Amino acid sequence: MPQISERGFAMPASPIRKLVPFAEAAKKRGTRVFHLNIGQPDIATPQIMMDAIRNSDIKVVEYSHSAGNESYRRKLTGYYKSVGVDVTHNQIIITTGGSEAILFGFMACLDPGDEVIIPEPFYANYNGFAISAGVKVVPVTSSIETGYGLPPIQDFEKLITERTKAIVICNPNNPTGYLYSRKELELLKEIVVKHNLYLFSDEAYREFCYTGELLSVLQMEGADENLVVMDTISKRYSACGARLGALVTKNQSVLDAVMKFAQARLSPPTFAQIAGEAALDLPADYFTETKAEYLRRRDLLVSRLNKMEGVFCPNPGGAFYAMAKLPIDDSDAFCQWLLEEFEFNGQTVMLAPATGFYGTPGLGKQEVRLAYVLNVEALDAAMNCLEQALKVYPGRQ
Amino acid sequence: MPQISERGFAMPASPIRKLVPFAEAAKKRGTRVFHLNIGQPDIATPQIMMDAIRNSDIKVVEYSHSAGNESYRRKLTGYYKSVGVDVTHNQIIITTGGSEAILFGFMACLDPGDEVIIPEPFYANYNGFAISAGVKVVPVTSSIETGYGLPPIQDFEKLITERTKAIVICNPNNPTGYLYSRKELELLKEIVVKHNLYLFSDEAYREFCYTGELLSVLQMEGADENLVVMDTISKRYSACGARLGALVTKNQSVLDAVMKFAQARLSPPTFAQIAGEAALDLPADYFTETKAEYLRRRDLLVSRLNKMEGVFCPNPGGAFYAMAKLPIDDSDAFCQWLLEEFEFNGQTVMLAPATGFYGTPGLGKQEVRLAYVLNVEALDAAMNCLEQALKVYPGRQ
Repeated sequence: MPQISERGFAMPASPIRKLVPFAEAAKKRGTRVFHLNIGQPDIATPQIMMDAIRNSDIKVVEYSHSAGNESYRRKLTGYYKSVGVDVTHNQIIITTGGSEAILFGFMACLDPGDEVIIPEPFYANYNGFAISAGVKVVPVTSSIETGYGLPPIQDFEKLITERTKAIVICNPNNPTGYLYSRKELELLKEIVVKHNLYLFSDEAYREFCYTGELLSVLQMEGADENLVVMDTISKRYSACGARLGALVTKNQSVLDAVMKFAQARLSPPTFAQIAGEAALDLPADYFTETKAEYLRRRDLLVSRLNKMEGVFCPNPGGAFYAMAKLPIDDSDAFCQWLLEEFEFNGQTVMLAPATGFYGTPGLGKQEVRLAYVLNVEALDAAMNCLEQALKVYPGRQ
Repeated sequence: MPQISERGFAMPASPIRKLVPFAEAAKKRGTRVFHLNIGQPDIATPQIMMDAIRNSDIKVVEYSHSAGNESYRRKLTGYYKSVGVDVTHNQIIITTGGSEAILFGFMACLDPGDEVIIPEPFYANYNGFAISAGVKVVPVTSSIETGYGLPPIQDFEKLITERTKAIVICNPNNPTGYLYSRKELELLKEIVVKHNLYLFSDEAYREFCYTGELLSVLQMEGADENLVVMDTISKRYSACGARLGALVTKNQSVLDAVMKFAQARLSPPTFAQIAGEAALDLPADYFTETKAEYLRRRDLLVSRLNKMEGVFCPNPGGAFYAMAKLPIDDSDAFCQWLLEEFEFNGQTVMLAPATGFYGTPGLGKQEVRLAYVLNVEALDAAMNCLEQALKVYPGRQ
């Protein structure tokens, strides 16, 4: 029997999804499970997107341009302009979800053995894309004490080697919800320019900022060749399943290289592009309501968490995630126990253990990520479960 | 300025799409261009697929299961059964187009430096996926004299090294249209079992066979661990832009490894899965009509080509491509000349130079690929252009 590849062995299983069988078993037993474990918003996908697909008069579902439909890319320049980013339609390559934008960025800019520095905790799938590209992830640890702010820039300096090719940030951050400040981004810009690195900025949650405005890295000047944005409509319009994203950069060599990877896979999905283009006609106040809803949820969640004994949850500035430190021995064991052995009034809660978001072994054992993707009533009930669980968990510390 | 990666440099630009600027210029001059250069069918996408999307009552376009919707995979087992392939829904992983099935197969089974043997001429994008995966493509040359039948199995034996991990075939073949016989497939099965290799079979054109029945590699016995099928609905239902494919195998280790790559990119596109599932309700005679149409086109094309002086076109057994040997000096120069300098009654024809389909440098200079994706009237007019062009081409030999 032929063996699978070493990278096939090395690929991590999704740390978020590995608890799924326990959740399914709990549901089979009749327990209601509040899913705070995954960033799947419950907000309805805008009607205008669904209508655009319904009303399209396509006869043949053809390949689109490998960079995405020109009409969509041209219209997207208006969207980016509205958020302060000045790019042409030729500086945007439409991808199959933000996932493909990350993969293409890694593939086009990094070679096997190259290193990328990423503040941890970080989005776990960066590991998967790094392994696909043969790239080594070098974590730089951020601290819950600062709300997971940018680690001191000297910590980055210490980690830079001759194989370092890029720094990756997610802003606002998944899993921490941290919103990077202009000062932090300027520090990152300086260091990538100084060391001739790329700065990849995953801005999937751009629209969801509560404590200030997002600064896209593409709004910074003097580093056009270093800056690459990975984007997606998944969270923006609650359209995760559409699989539509974009890689945006002013670096022509990167665009040319990414385009060759885009041509090899032919085109991004047609129906998603129709929906994505229609979404650009949403009224300017569309996000006002959605943001207000997320803000209500965040406030409830953070407030409830910090009232629990031994729990600390810094107030996240963006996205729809919060990280909390719990008085527990092991977050993996705790999250599994919540599904396997605990219930409160026939209910329990599913959380993401933070260990999967750290690159440094041993970190995250007392932290969990909570996605506030349920309405306030459900969130409140979920917090009741968690509060009760922490009282009776045998591994409480 | 940071450099792009070596693999970014190494990625080939699409050999099929590189002539596009010349075609655009020709159209701007008012010349009608018959596109026989790309496998984009003109057949309408079945109404049942479009209706399924129109009538879906999705409120939130959520991530699907990373392996694809279970309902779709379960229903697909019925489709595979109907073509003689007996698999469970857990042996099917839904991908974003056949492209992703190929990439996942390479990533999960092959390591950087590993070698795959592929009969040439072959689908050019195998090169792109091989470079993405760091894998070396080793071509084994098939001959136009045999209609591009399987090269002698000794030719494969000679190329096998300790780094050889797989053989890749496309059946029926793109670009040659060759339909592999049971005997040829049995020879391939023997050699992969003997040398402990994978046999990847890209069966994108399964439905379009004219000179016999397709034998899927998964219909062969005694090599379950070696056999992996890459599939897609793109050509089957003329839905190239949907981006929906599948990787199918009975090798559980491969399924487990592929699943991790699938989880990293979250899920295949939702709308495409709705359309793909609906397509499985098409009446059994759906392909009868489509096949009859392709057959009419093939017969016209091959007949016209072989009547031209100095032209040889073997009769393809499947797919919707034909390869022809022309009395020319250089197929790249000829195809560009057709767009840049030639016209006949205000019309010209766009072909794919065969050089891009060969891994061995220098081969394919007298061959072109023709995709019969236009109706017979347009095809006939395109053949008038080609016939005239060959009379006046300065590089005629």
